[in-house]
Amino acid sequence: MSTIRVGMVGYKFMGKAHSNAYRALPMFFPASLRPEMKAICGRDAAALEAARAQFGWEDAETDWRKLIARDDIDLIDINAPSDAHKQIAIAAAEAGKHLFCEKPLALSLADAREMLDAAERAGVKHMIGFNYRFAPAVQLAKKLIAEGRIGQIYHIRAVFLQDWIIDPEFPLVWRLQKDVAGSGSLGDLGAHSIDLARFLVGEFKEVIGMNETFVKERPLPGSMTGLSASGSAGGERGPVTVDDATLFMARFEGGALGSFEATRFAAGHRCTNAFEINGSKGSIKFDFERMNELEVYFTEDAADVQGFRRVLATDAAHAYMDAWWPAGHTIGYEHTFTHEVLELMTAFAEDRQPTPSFVDGVRCQEVLEAVDRSIAERRWVSVSEL
Amino acid sequence: MSTIRVGMVGYKFMGKAHSNAYRALPMFFPASLRPEMKAICGRDAAALEAARAQFGWEDAETDWRKLIARDDIDLIDINAPSDAHKQIAIAAAEAGKHLFCEKPLALSLADAREMLDAAERAGVKHMIGFNYRFAPAVQLAKKLIAEGRIGQIYHIRAVFLQDWIIDPEFPLVWRLQKDVAGSGSLGDLGAHSIDLARFLVGEFKEVIGMNETFVKERPLPGSMTGLSASGSAGGERGPVTVDDATLFMARFEGGALGSFEATRFAAGHRCTNAFEINGSKGSIKFDFERMNELEVYFTEDAADVQGFRRVLATDAAHAYMDAWWPAGHTIGYEHTFTHEVLELMTAFAEDRQPTPSFVDGVRCQEVLEAVDRSIAERRWVSVSEL
Amino acid sequence: MSTIRVGMVGYKFMGKAHSNAYRALPMFFPASLRPEMKAICGRDAAALEAARAQFGWEDAETDWRKLIARDDIDLIDINAPSDAHKQIAIAAAEAGKHLFCEKPLALSLADAREMLDAAERAGVKHMIGFNYRFAPAVQLAKKLIAEGRIGQIYHIRAVFLQDWIIDPEFPLVWRLQKDVAGSGSLGDLGAHSIDLARFLVGEFKEVIGMNETFVKERPLPGSMTGLSASGSAGGERGPVTVDDATLFMARFEGGALGSFEATRFAAGHRCTNAFEINGSKGSIKFDFERMNELEVYFTEDAADVQGFRRVLATDAAHAYMDAWWPAGHTIGYEHTFTHEVLELMTAFAEDRQPTPSFVDGVRCQEVLEAVDRSIAERRWVSVSEL
Amino acid sequence: MSTIRVGMVGYKFMGKAHSNAYRALPMFFPASLRPEMKAICGRDAAALEAARAQFGWEDAETDWRKLIARDDIDLIDINAPSDAHKQIAIAAAEAGKHLFCEKPLALSLADAREMLDAAERAGVKHMIGFNYRFAPAVQLAKKLIAEGRIGQIYHIRAVFLQDWIIDPEFPLVWRLQKDVAGSGSLGDLGAHSIDLARFLVGEFKEVIGMNETFVKERPLPGSMTGLSASGSAGGERGPVTVDDATLFMARFEGGALGSFEATRFAAGHRCTNAFEINGSKGSIKFDFERMNELEVYFTEDAADVQGFRRVLATDAAHAYMDAWWPAGHTIGYEHTFTHEVLELMTAFAEDRQPTPSFVDGVRCQEVLEAVDRSIAERRWVSVSEL
Repeated sequence: MSTIRVGMVGYKFMGKAHSNAYRALPMFFPASLRPEMKAICGRDAAALEAARAQFGWEDAETDWRKLIARDDIDLIDINAPSDAHKQIAIAAAEAGKHLFCEKPLALSLADAREMLDAAERAGVKHMIGFNYRFAPAVQLAKKLIAEGRIGQIYHIRAVFLQDWIIDPEFPLVWRLQKDVAGSGSLGDLGAHSIDLARFLVGEFKEVIGMNETFVKERPLPGSMTGLSASGSAGGERGPVTVDDATLFMARFEGGALGSFEATRFAAGHRCTNAFEINGSKGSIKFDFERMNELEVYFTEDAADVQGFRRVLATDAAHAYMDAWWPAGHTIGYEHTFTHEVLELMTAFAEDRQPTPSFVDGVRCQEVLEAVDRSIAERRWVSVSEL
Repeated sequence: MSTIRVGMVGYKFMGKAHSNAYRALPMFFPASLRPEMKAICGRDAAALEAARAQFGWEDAETDWRKLIARDDIDLIDINAPSDAHKQIAIAAAEAGKHLFCEKPLALSLADAREMLDAAERAGVKHMIGFNYRFAPAVQLAKKLIAEGRIGQIYHIRAVFLQDWIIDPEFPLVWRLQKDVAGSGSLGDLGAHSIDLARFLVGEFKEVIGMNETFVKERPLPGSMTGLSASGSAGGERGPVTVDDATLFMARFEGGALGSFEATRFAAGHRCTNAFEINGSKGSIKFDFERMNELEVYFTEDAADVQGFRRVLATDAAHAYMDAWWPAGHTIGYEHTFTHEVLELMTAFAEDRQPTPSFVDGVRCQEVLEAVDRSIAERRWVSVSEL
Repeated sequence: MSTIRVGMVGYKFMGKAHSNAYRALPMFFPASLRPEMKAICGRDAAALEAARAQFGWEDAETDWRKLIARDDIDLIDINAPSDAHKQIAIAAAEAGKHLFCEKPLALSLADAREMLDAAERAGVKHMIGFNYRFAPAVQLAKKLIAEGRIGQIYHIRAVFLQDWIIDPEFPLVWRLQKDVAGSGSLGDLGAHSIDLARFLVGEFKEVIGMNETFVKERPLPGSMTGLSASGSAGGERGPVTVDDATLFMARFEGGALGSFEATRFAAGHRCTNAFEINGSKGSIKFDFERMNELEVYFTEDAADVQGFRRVLATDAAHAYMDAWWPAGHTIGYEHTFTHEVLELMTAFAEDRQPTPSFVDGVRCQEVLEAVDRSIAERRWVSVSEL
Repeated sequence: MSTIRVGMVGYKFMGKAHSNAYRALPMFFPASLRPEMKAICGRDAAALEAARAQFGWEDAETDWRKLIARDDIDLIDINAPSDAHKQIAIAAAEAGKHLFCEKPLALSLADAREMLDAAERAGVKHMIGFNYRFAPAVQLAKKLIAEGRIGQIYHIRAVFLQDWIIDPEFPLVWRLQKDVAGSGSLGDLGAHSIDLARFLVGEFKEVIGMNETFVKERPLPGSMTGLSASGSAGGERGPVTVDDATLFMARFEGGALGSFEATRFAAGHRCTNAFEINGSKGSIKFDFERMNELEVYFTEDAADVQGFRRVLATDAAHAYMDAWWPAGHTIGYEHTFTHEVLELMTAFAEDRQPTPSFVDGVRCQEVLEAVDRSIAERRWVSVSEL
C-alpha cells in the first residue's frame, strides 16, 4: 500500500480544511504515506463540481452510497453536517472502508457507540477530527504533562468563546437547529474542550452543567458557508433549538477539578479556545487565538525569576515544526489538520489505530451526554451512569 | 464634625493596609473629612506597641472592650481574624460606634445578619471592606455597565487564583483553620469575586459549587504575618479544615450566567483576582495583577478595528486619578484602601450609609452559604432559600 | 492567457515558500489567474529532483540558462542566493521573461538599477519579494494610514530581531559571507523594515547608521537549509564578513522620524519583525510573531476608554481573509507568500506592474546603500546623493 | 543623628512625590533613619501654605535663602523648576547642607559640574532623583546583569514615550520653554533612559542624535500642575523652544549598541518608559506602564520551554517587597520615590554617598550635551570630547 485513496463527504468549511491538509501533506511531510484525493461527495451537483475543481479532487459523486461502493477508495472522510455522520460511517465500515469523521461523532451517545461498534466489527481504522490536539503548542502541553514537569494536576479551566451569533438578526443556520446539529455551543465548541481535557488531564468522573439560549428566535436563513450566513429575504423567524452557551464543572478520575464554558455570546472573542492547567510543579496556558504560543510556569524556577514563559512553539524542539519554516515563522489554523492527517497516514503506515479514534469520540460523547442530563435533571451526573 | 476619630482592632496585614489609607487620605484627598488615628488595639502588647509606632496611631489598647468604651472614638475599624468580627461589631454598635469591618463579615450568615441588625438598631454607619471595588479600573467597569455601554449582560467568569500554599510543607496558619477563618479559598478569595459580581452584574439567583482540599495535613505553624509564615520546629502536623479550592456556577436575577473559581493552588498566580463580563454591546476584562488596566471591547466599533482596548485607567477621566499622579503613572494595591476610606469619610460628610455596607456583607454571605450548602447537598441552591 | 507558466531558480527556504504559494493560490483564490509550476532549477541534480517531487514541479533544470531558454515558461522566479540574482534576472528579461525576484534585489545599488533597467527595456513585469506587506494586519495598517485615520505621521520605530546566530559556535553559513549574501542583518532583515517603512510612511530623506560584528570568526559550515546549519567536522574557522547588527535613524520626506534596528543577536527573539507608527490621530503596532494582530489606538476615542485595541485581523473586513477560514481562525507566515503571488497573478490579469516591483527593490537598495555609506563615513547621508 | 531634617524647595508634581516618600518611609521601612519634614519652600505664599498643610510639613518659607540659612535643617531637597537647581544647590552646599536634587541636575553640563564641585568642596552628601532605578523590577534587572545571568551585553533599546502635548492646542507650559526647562523630551524623558542605561549597561562612549519640534507654536499658558495645564484666555501664541522628540544611537564603552528615543508625540503612550537589553545569555524587558513586571529570557533554558518569562517582581525575593504587601499585591509609581529616599537615608546611616549621586547627574548631563552637540553638528560626538 503506497497511497491511501480518499473519498470525502462534505465540501464546506471542514471539507475545505481537510482538502487542504491532503494537499499539504506530501509537500511538507514527504516521508508520510500519501493520500490520494479520489472523489468528493455532496448533493448539490453544481456546487460540488466547483468544490472539486477548487480543492483538487479527481472525481465527484452526488450520492454517498455510490462513493462507498467504489473499489478505488480506501478511506471515507465524513465532514457532512452532524446528523449524517452515523448512517454514512456505518455503511462505509460495513463496506470495509476506513473512517475519518469530523466531530461530534454523532447526535447522541447511542449513535456514537453504534458507529464505534460498526468500525470495530469491520476491523477498519477510525479517526475523529479533534484537530486542536495537533497544534504544536498543545503537543508541547501534552509532553510537559506526560514527562511529569507540571506535576499532579489540580485544576483545568477551559473556555471556548465565540461571538458570531451575538447579533439577534443573525439567521437561523443549521448549526442553530437541534435536529441537524444535535447541540449548540456544547457540542460544537465544548466538545473540543472536553477532548483537550481528556487528552491532557485524563478521564472525567462526574459533571454538572447549566445552559441558556439568549436569543430564542432568529430570521430564517439563506445559505451558509463556514460560520457566516445571509438572512432570509422574507423576514420570517424560527425558534433556536440549541444552546447559545453551556457551562459545566467536572471532577476528574485523577482528582483534578475542571471548569468549562462554551458560548457564542462572548463579544470580542472570535475563536478563544483556551485552557489553563495548574499542577503541583507548574502551570500551562493556551489560547487558540495565539495558537503558536504556550505559556508555561515552573515552581522550581529560581525564586527571583519565576513567571509564566511565553514559549513560541515554532522551534525545532517542538512537534512538527522542522517540517515547516525556521523558528519564529508561525503557522495557522489549517496546519492542525495537516498534522491530523499526518497521524492518520502514519497509523496506516504502522498498521495501528490512529489517535484520536472513535473511542475518543465516544468518550467525548459520554461527557456531552452527562452534561446534558445534568442540565435536564439539575444534578451531578457520573460519567459511569451512561 | 470635622474629623472622624478611629479605633482599630487588628494590626497585621489588613491593619497595615487600613493605617496606610488613613495616613494617605488627607494628603491626596484634602477636601475629604479627615480620619484621626486615635487608638490601635491587639492582644500582644509588645507587638502592638511596635505597630502603633510604625503605623502612627496615638494610643494602643490591648482590650477591645476598652477601645469601644472610649469617648474619644467615633468609628471602630475591625480587621482582627474573622472569628472575632461578630462580637466586636455588635458590642461597638451597641456602644454607638460606627463600624468599618473587613470581609468576610462573619463566619456564618446568621452571624452576619445579627451584625447588620445590631448596626441598624443602633443607627450607626456600617461599611465592609471589599476593597477591590475601589480600583479605578473596576470603577470604570461599573461606569460602562451602568451607562449601558456593555448592553445586556450574558456572562461573567471570575477567578481568584493564588499559589501561596501550593507547597505541602507550608504550615497550618490560621487561614487554614475553619474555626478561626470560617472558610478557605471561598470565603477569603471567592468572597471578593462574589462582591464584584454583585457590584457589576447584580444579584445572584441560584448557585451550585464543588470544592477540594488537596493537601489534607500540614505542619503546625510558627507565627504569621500577611500571607507568609514559618513552620513549626517540632514537625507536628494538623488537619487542614478549610477548602483549598472552590468552584461554582451561578445564575443571576438579570439572566446572566456566572462561572466562579477560587483557589490557592494555581501555580504562577500570586494574586489573580480576574473577571470577564460579556454583554450584548461589548465585553470587559480585569486582572488585579495588572490593576491599572481594563480591557474593553465594543461591538459597535468600526468593522475593521474591532478589538479589546487596553485602557490604562490612570487618566483624569478615570475615578480618583486626578488626586494622584499624571496619566500613565500607575498606582498599586494599597490605593484601593485609600479610595475605600474616602468613600467612608464621604459617607460621614454626606450623612449617608457608605457603600459597600453590612447589607452587602450579608448578601455576599448569603451567596457563600448557598455555595456551601450546594456543595454539601450536591444540588442547586437558590439564594432565596436562605 | 489563462495560466502563467513559472520557472523557478532556487529550492531551499524561499523556494519552498514560493512553491507552497503557487500550490495554495488556485484552491483559496480560485478566481485568480493560475500559476503553472513548469520547472524548478538548481545545481545539485539529486537534491533538485527531491525538491521537484516534494514541491510538485513538472520538470527540473540544472542550468538556469536552459530554464530561461524554454519556450513554455512565462515567468522566472528567482530565489537563489543573492549573488546570483542579477545575472539571472537580466538574462531572463532579455529573453522576454517576466520576473519575480526575492529580496534583496542585488548585492549593490548599481546592480539593482541594472536589473530594473533591463526589465524596463524588455517591457516585462517585475516583482520583488517583500512578503511582509501581505500580512492582513499590515494591509490593515496601510489602509488606516491611507484613509487618514492615523493622521500625520510623526514616528516610526522598526526592529527586526532574531537570535539564530547568538551561539558563537554556529557555523559560517552563506548568509554570513559578504561575497554571497552582500550584507548581513541589514540586507537580510533591515531590508524588510525599510520596505515596510516605505510602504507605510513614505520615502526616506536621509539616514545615519552604525553596525557591529560581535562574533568575528566562526566554524566553517557543513550544509544549510533555511536558517539552521551544521558545523564542520574539521573545526576550522573563517571570518564573518557581514554585520551581526545594524542600527540607523532616518528622516522621511514627509517629516517623520524613524528608528531602525536589525540584529541576529537578540536572545529570545526568533522573528520579531515589528514596528510602531505614531501619528497625530493615532498609533499602530505590529509584531510578526503575532502576525494576525494589529494594535491600533485612536486619539478620538472617548476619553474614558482610550487604549490600544488588539485587532485580530482575521475578520471578513480584513484583506484576503474571506478566502481562508472563519473569523478568529488564524493564518501563518506562508500565507504572506500566497497573497504576494495573488498580487503577481492579478497584475498579469490586469496587465499592469505588480507591487512591490523592482522599482521598490531599487528604492530599498538606495536606503541600504545610504546606510552603508553613512556607517563607513560616519555621517548623515541623503538618499538623493546616490 | 537619629533623624534627618529636611527643607524642600518646590511643591508641585515632584514636591508631592517627595513629600509622600518622606511620609511613607517610617511606616514601611521602620528600621530606616527617619526624615523630618521641617519646612517647605515656594514663592506663592498662599499656594505654599496649602501644600504645607496638605503634604504635612511643619513650616513654610517663601525665600529659599532663608530656608538654607536655618540651623534646624540638614538636607535641602530641590525640586523647583530646572533653571533654579544650580543656584540653590551651590548656596545650600556652601551652607553645609546635604543635597537631594531632582533631575536634570542643571540646564547645562558646565552648571552641573559646578554643582558637583560645590558639593564635593563642601563635603556634603548629594543625591539626584533618578527614581526609576528604584522600581523593584529595575532592581531585578540590575541584579541579573550584575550576577552575569544575562551575559555580555550586545544591545539596549530604550524609549520614553508620552503623548500629553500631541494636541496642538495644549498650552506653552514651562516644560516647553528652553530657558526654564533647559531641554524638552531629551532632558525630561531621555535623561531617565540615559541614567537607566548607565545603571544597567555602563558608560556611553559616543552618540549621534536627531530631534524635531512638530508643533512650533502653542497658546500661552494659564497655570500648570504635574503634566496638565489650561490654555490662556486670550488666544495668544508663543514659540515652542524645546524638542518634541529626540532620537539617538550610542556605542557603549563595553561594546554594546544603544538605540534611544524620547518623545511627547506617541499617541496612546502615557508613560512608556521602556527598555530591552539583549545579552549573550539572555534578555530583559521593562515597561514602566507595567512597572511591577520584568520580562526575562535565558538562552540556557531547556530547548522546548524557551520564552520570555513575565516575572511579577512582588515576591519576597525582589528588592523592597517584603516591606510592602504579600506577593502579587502590586505597588505604583510613587513607591519608586520611597525607595529612593530609603537609599538616601541609608547613606546617612552608613555615612557614605547615596547612589545615584551628583556624579551620576553630571555623567547623564555629559551624554545629554553630547547628544545636543551631535544634533547641532550632525556628527558622532564622543562623550570624552566634553
